[in-house]
Amino acid sequence: MKTYRHNVTVHWGDTDPANIVFYPNYFAWFDESARLYFDSVGLPWETLMEKYGIVGLPIVEAKARFLAPSVFRDEIVIESAIGKWNDKTFEISHAVLNRGLRAVEGYEIRAWTQRRPDDPTRLKAVPIPPEIKAAFD
Amino acid sequence: MKTYRHNVTVHWGDTDPANIVFYPNYFAWFDESARLYFDSVGLPWETLMEKYGIVGLPIVEAKARFLAPSVFRDEIVIESAIGKWNDKTFEISHAVLNRGLRAVEGYEIRAWTQRRPDDPTRLKAVPIPPEIKAAFD
Amino acid sequence: MKTYRHNVTVHWGDTDPANIVFYPNYFAWFDESARLYFDSVGLPWETLMEKYGIVGLPIVEAKARFLAPSVFRDEIVIESAIGKWNDKTFEISHAVLNRGLRAVEGYEIRAWTQRRPDDPTRLKAVPIPPEIKAAFD
Amino acid sequence: MKTYRHNVTVHWGDTDPANIVFYPNYFAWFDESARLYFDSVGLPWETLMEKYGIVGLPIVEAKARFLAPSVFRDEIVIESAIGKWNDKTFEISHAVLNRGLRAVEGYEIRAWTQRRPDDPTRLKAVPIPPEIKAAFD
Repeated sequence: MKTYRHNVTVHWGDTDPANIVFYPNYFAWFDESARLYFDSVGLPWETLMEKYGIVGLPIVEAKARFLAPSVFRDEIVIESAIGKWNDKTFEISHAVLNRGLRAVEGYEIRAWTQRRPDDPTRLKAVPIPPEIKAAFD
Repeated sequence: MKTYRHNVTVHWGDTDPANIVFYPNYFAWFDESARLYFDSVGLPWETLMEKYGIVGLPIVEAKARFLAPSVFRDEIVIESAIGKWNDKTFEISHAVLNRGLRAVEGYEIRAWTQRRPDDPTRLKAVPIPPEIKAAFD
Repeated sequence: MKTYRHNVTVHWGDTDPANIVFYPNYFAWFDESARLYFDSVGLPWETLMEKYGIVGLPIVEAKARFLAPSVFRDEIVIESAIGKWNDKTFEISHAVLNRGLRAVEGYEIRAWTQRRPDDPTRLKAVPIPPEIKAAFD
Repeated sequence: MKTYRHNVTVHWGDTDPANIVFYPNYFAWFDESARLYFDSVGLPWETLMEKYGIVGLPIVEAKARFLAPSVFRDEIVIESAIGKWNDKTFEISHAVLNRGLRAVEGYEIRAWTQRRPDDPTRLKAVPIPPEIKAAFD
């Protein structure tokens, strides 16, 4: 399985009065890394939306465990990889590495989603094409 | 001239390791207050976009002077009012009041903007209709 | 178990090009609600830090499932309640209600944490006093 | 005068339903660039705080003019330089370059600030040492 490494510099504005990263920012970095991961295998989401008629890859679930804090000036890496393919959804695992240690580990579950033919204001998850899954091997 | 008062609670995540509001947040609150101000006179931007064919009211310029810091748990008020009508643009003044004092003062300049008939990917500022200006009297 | 209801207005800046709330913002609202929930039972974190020598209530784990999107202008409610007390940690459950529906459900796990006497730069979780737990009954 | 170039990738979460950067983010990037600019001449703010007893370089004023929008995936550069030295304050000019064009131009005014000897809870601006100014030549 291919892996993507997303380098992030922790800026002053990312941190809080406890001098550590305000935790919702890690999820913003997960989101960034998820998109860049697809780019890295030649599947930017805009292309997928055009080619497959999907409406992005909406988030279904996100989770993180916080093992060690990160502070202003830390240079962290988000290591992202497909954790699991399901029929209509998939899990991307994200690990935040900081100073050689695992600082955060988590995942996002996202769905391969189209508009309903009978009611385009509503969405439904549909099976992920095999060539998409194969692109990450 | 009508005025709008936008109440904002300073949350932990709005503050930085110096224990004060990270200053870009004030501009986010200016933006919120600008939209709510138009709502308060019966002119939500969505309605304006539909009725006048404008593409929102894009920001042209923004400025703030920081007079006193705000901290976690402060209950601040953004007082917004039209500062000046120009032909195609207008200035909204914003003052942040905290504990009875003026903590921040600033403004936004925004433009009444449509798509160019000859090239819809480009925008041009056009004159603001008089009834819009009158709604704030 | 006492519950806290945190009212949040979805502002333009909270949403993304898909016209829906950018999901990390929900975690920021969880964090806000967790603090306000403690306030609501007379236990602001600042008081706890002073009285018990804890260093806040650091986040250990956070998770959310996204059931329905929220959009600009939505008035949502975060309903927060203690989900479970453990010896040194506890879970706060958060449900986002929007237009009468459950839009997001999740939780945070936080730890009752002090500085190590032998090395104040390091932290350790210690047992949560019974009177803290009782305050939420 | 030395200049600093801060490279920023525009991520999805930085943009709004109009598909462009939500403007307060530019000020967050100004703040990042101001700090990195001082680092680049060997004067990280932490060192200045320790050596000169200052309490950071608090923001006094910030302004931006928005000339062209930036969108998701744009690779922008913030070009920062000292715009003007005053006795106790200074101006850093920031220009955002995108696709070879000037997208935003603005500045921050910041103050060289210490705690008052008679009342450490209050701050006062004091003269900027000449060697600080010289470091940017």
